[in-house]
Amino acid sequence: MARYRLTIEYDGTPFAGWQRQHGQPSVQAALEEAIMRLGEEDLTLSGAGRTDAGVHAMGQVAHVDLQKDWTPDKLMGAINAQVRPDPVSVLDVAMVDDDFHARFSATARHYRFRILDRRPPPALDRNRVWWVPHPLDADAMHEAAQVLVGHHDFTTFRSAQCQSKSPVKTLDRLDVVREGAEVVVYASARSFLHNQVRSLVGTLKLAGEGKCSAADVRAALDAADRSACGPVAPPDGLYLMSVDY
Amino acid sequence: MARYRLTIEYDGTPFAGWQRQHGQPSVQAALEEAIMRLGEEDLTLSGAGRTDAGVHAMGQVAHVDLQKDWTPDKLMGAINAQVRPDPVSVLDVAMVDDDFHARFSATARHYRFRILDRRPPPALDRNRVWWVPHPLDADAMHEAAQVLVGHHDFTTFRSAQCQSKSPVKTLDRLDVVREGAEVVVYASARSFLHNQVRSLVGTLKLAGEGKCSAADVRAALDAADRSACGPVAPPDGLYLMSVDY
Repeated sequence: MARYRLTIEYDGTPFAGWQRQHGQPSVQAALEEAIMRLGEEDLTLSGAGRTDAGVHAMGQVAHVDLQKDWTPDKLMGAINAQVRPDPVSVLDVAMVDDDFHARFSATARHYRFRILDRRPPPALDRNRVWWVPHPLDADAMHEAAQVLVGHHDFTTFRSAQCQSKSPVKTLDRLDVVREGAEVVVYASARSFLHNQVRSLVGTLKLAGEGKCSAADVRAALDAADRSACGPVAPPDGLYLMSVDY
Repeated sequence: MARYRLTIEYDGTPFAGWQRQHGQPSVQAALEEAIMRLGEEDLTLSGAGRTDAGVHAMGQVAHVDLQKDWTPDKLMGAINAQVRPDPVSVLDVAMVDDDFHARFSATARHYRFRILDRRPPPALDRNRVWWVPHPLDADAMHEAAQVLVGHHDFTTFRSAQCQSKSPVKTLDRLDVVREGAEVVVYASARSFLHNQVRSLVGTLKLAGEGKCSAADVRAALDAADRSACGPVAPPDGLYLMSVDY
């Protein structure tokens, strides 16, 4: 019995999310079933971030306890061979101590949110970006974002389904950068509330449209009231990029 | 009656190629049918490059003669509204003179070919890259590529189905650059033979694997013999980036 840490990339489009759900395709189930086809039994993959339906990952991290003694390299190849044709790929495998926990040992999670800010809709990046067909002011978005960085009660930016005990979180980074036709939001924190990144991005978009100022965003945060949040951004543009331990 | 130039992005995955083919989905037919739904009749879209099945475009150019007087902006929006749900997007429309021809007026075509050079298969970029799971020497590929730049008989790198009158072409640029986990090939010429870019990339891959040297590539070119070509690269990694006039 040994514990393995997996770093995982996936296209979230065909999945109901990371987490196993009865009767629906999930990334967790796709990987667990792939590993069971290797002769492993009674296994549970624990992921660092429970990404929602349609949310992607370039560096999700999970751990799993396996019966057989696998070399990390062989395990990676074997899982990738089995998980096809699902759009999931294990990028790295490492053997870790028994006290490593993908979710609870994480010290930071890094997300990226891609907004395609151009009039024509995406063709190549369909399901990969949030398409906003009118010009956004990325500088205004970045300015508004700085109000949100730090230790706050994020009730305004929290889903009604959020299971976190406390709405208080520390947001370490919320940068908005224009990259060609895209406006990209970088968000980092030890942990996030459910829907927090998409809620933040939805409100920053309003700032980019000139519909609210940095002061309005601060007032929305201070209100600690879900109804003060802008519309939640769609999942398509969100990527779990990496997790720190 | 006026002539319009369209700049087009598409995901080539679901198409049998750019060109209209009986009973098969094509980008040309998708766009022509979208435009016909705007009330236009008897139209033919002429593209600058006849991309093959699975080949993508970020800047294909086509022209079309239309009956109605469209403002370019309205035409772009109307076509994009009609062409959904196909993964095709018109990025730009301009009114052009009657002597403009997307194919024959082109002075240069620019292609990019993306190789994902890593052991794990692509998840997010499935169908968007050529996956090569072992390390390639991009510098050796670039060195071999320089042998191919210039005015040559490219019979070696030409499909048997190529309809071009002459196998002699001038290759203006063939650069190989490592960009993170990707090895990217940039190819520019006034015009290309059928399958030329994919044939060149297939042979450069052999150079990147140490299976042939720049001198071997020169000998293959000089042989003017299709059988001297390495295996043709798959379409997935190829993008028509832009066309000059």
